Amino acid sequence: MPSEFDFIQTIRQQAAKQAQSAGDLVFGIGDDAAIWREQTGRETLITVDLLVEDVDFKLDYAPPRWLGHKALAVSLSDIAAMGGKPKFALLTLAIPPDLKSQISNLKSEIFWEEFFAGYFTLAEKHRVQLIGGDISSAPDRLTIDSIVIGQCQAGRAVRRNGAKAGDAIYVTGSLGASAAGLKLLLNGARVGDAVRSPAFRRQTFASESPTEGGTTNAIQSAMRAHLKPEPRVEFGQRLGELSLANAMIDVSDGLAQDLAHICEDSGVSAVIDFDAVPVAAEISLVTVTPDDGFDLAVSGGEDFELLFIADPKNEVALMAFAADCQLRLTRIGEIISADPSPSVLLRRAGTVMALPIRGFDHFATQ
Amino acid sequence: MPSEFDFIQTIRQQAAKQAQSAGDLVFGIGDDAAIWREQTGRETLITVDLLVEDVDFKLDYAPPRWLGHKALAVSLSDIAAMGGKPKFALLTLAIPPDLKSQISNLKSEIFWEEFFAGYFTLAEKHRVQLIGGDISSAPDRLTIDSIVIGQCQAGRAVRRNGAKAGDAIYVTGSLGASAAGLKLLLNGARVGDAVRSPAFRRQTFASESPTEGGTTNAIQSAMRAHLKPEPRVEFGQRLGELSLANAMIDVSDGLAQDLAHICEDSGVSAVIDFDAVPVAAEISLVTVTPDDGFDLAVSGGEDFELLFIADPKNEVALMAFAADCQLRLTRIGEIISADPSPSVLLRRAGTVMALPIRGFDHFATQ
Repeated sequence: MPSEFDFIQTIRQQAAKQAQSAGDLVFGIGDDAAIWREQTGRETLITVDLLVEDVDFKLDYAPPRWLGHKALAVSLSDIAAMGGKPKFALLTLAIPPDLKSQISNLKSEIFWEEFFAGYFTLAEKHRVQLIGGDISSAPDRLTIDSIVIGQCQAGRAVRRNGAKAGDAIYVTGSLGASAAGLKLLLNGARVGDAVRSPAFRRQTFASESPTEGGTTNAIQSAMRAHLKPEPRVEFGQRLGELSLANAMIDVSDGLAQDLAHICEDSGVSAVIDFDAVPVAAEISLVTVTPDDGFDLAVSGGEDFELLFIADPKNEVALMAFAADCQLRLTRIGEIISADPSPSVLLRRAGTVMALPIRGFDHFATQ
Repeated sequence: MPSEFDFIQTIRQQAAKQAQSAGDLVFGIGDDAAIWREQTGRETLITVDLLVEDVDFKLDYAPPRWLGHKALAVSLSDIAAMGGKPKFALLTLAIPPDLKSQISNLKSEIFWEEFFAGYFTLAEKHRVQLIGGDISSAPDRLTIDSIVIGQCQAGRAVRRNGAKAGDAIYVTGSLGASAAGLKLLLNGARVGDAVRSPAFRRQTFASESPTEGGTTNAIQSAMRAHLKPEPRVEFGQRLGELSLANAMIDVSDGLAQDLAHICEDSGVSAVIDFDAVPVAAEISLVTVTPDDGFDLAVSGGEDFELLFIADPKNEVALMAFAADCQLRLTRIGEIISADPSPSVLLRRAGTVMALPIRGFDHFATQ
């Protein structure tokens, strides 16, 4: 990796190899700005997500291929949550000394090959084209800023403010596997040899937690949920195109907090059923009681599932679309009027109480 | 600053106060993505610039108001260099512990008030609206990622590839003041008390360099050129609208290197005149001979002037537009055919030689 320009040239070549699905692209990487054509009747969506080493991930446990995947996945998830179709991406990297080198350096070469393999594989899957970015040195930690641009028909973007009393609440997949995976990683568990390469490790790996048989699979599955989340791109886009969701958000801060955002923006309250929430099986790896498991599932965050509000009359169609996308879809409660103020309630064994909202706050004392 | 959400709320309120020049904006800060309306016949431009503490700036010497200004300025400069009109911006911040706090913290409050005062003042000047971003904690250093979206009429974006033999080379302003300012700052000079506030300093300031009278003003002016560059937004946009530039770039890596980018992309060579290059007066603060001064002026970088290639037949109009924008404009050479390959040449006292290209490379050994 002899220079910044050569590094950019390598990325540019990989970007150029991508399927040129983006018919509106005028020019991508290689000028002061990227350019694309607009079209009346369409709207552009843009989102950006920041991933900071030792805050949002650790190189000690994140396989670089999965890190490249996740950098794009989190932003794709935001476009999906708007009901949009992702089209273009930009990527910014602040690169610390041990991940760049004047002379050819095996560790940094493998790291970036793996990182971009993960990034571009996901980009190609969803026909998203990398059209720009920026690179700088960093004194000691990797910082990644991921930008994704999507499009939708004018007026079809699904905001957070359209939920109304009588609507039902739905969520894709299950909740909590990512939070369980993070707990396992922080306790020293590591992804299996099949996906990790020793060359990129910044520190010596802790030995894997003692596990056996099926538990090992569940542990790997939990870590994968955290490190390589699958954004619900196709399903989100369909909901937007068919105007089937009145409000939508992706579950990044935890179901309780993300549902609270919808309630606040829509001026409504939500009641969720304790027994209906799809708690991930992996939760049992890190919690003992069902109450603790439920708690972690609704507050853990980084699930990147779609949480949306829809008219229950459309439930058959919704379930059919989800099945088409090979996604589990669960109705977890309903929207009621906000009286006296927007809140998220929990119904359990016939009683209704406020659901404590604990989500991830970057500024909270850890 | 009690939480991440409150912090974002404060920024959101400031963004909302901005002039709503952006008639196409559907929704800005506060959902999974921002949304704007497209229009047939128009093109979108996007650029992103990363600023890393202790690599691209030091909090020790950068007044936060000027840092906020510069974060936006560098991206506005890219849109200007495409001949576009800036419309929207997104801002990403990785914030270290001493710049955030659970309890009210005077230092961090003043820092962010000043930073956003600088950012929003420049945004309002150019009618750019902040529509999104992301915030994360950082272990110890501030990282800023600045995204600007601009627009132009379809086909009017000024790329780097349109220069042709017979064209003339022009540059706005003067070159090298920023490089001189950076040298002074690294040697311990500091901006005057009028613009700095003691509360935000991370470390004790070094005492100012011993200076007197006019030299003090020149030192302040050089540091200002580096810390608070003025992007040539209006002039760049006019060149684009009137199709007066065949190729354009902003001078961020140094004239020699940026001109080389144009030559390579256009498949031409450039000859610049030693005596014509507008070397900033501030250069004499840090260099002794005219040769050293010239060298720093063409390789120093971060001038954020516009370097463009145009038909010399339009020179009268170009000079008039520059005067309208209160900008100095200088013709510094001409484009010739690339024989045998694209190169940047220097003409001095009747002889022509290759101009050594040294620009800033983030990956070079410092």
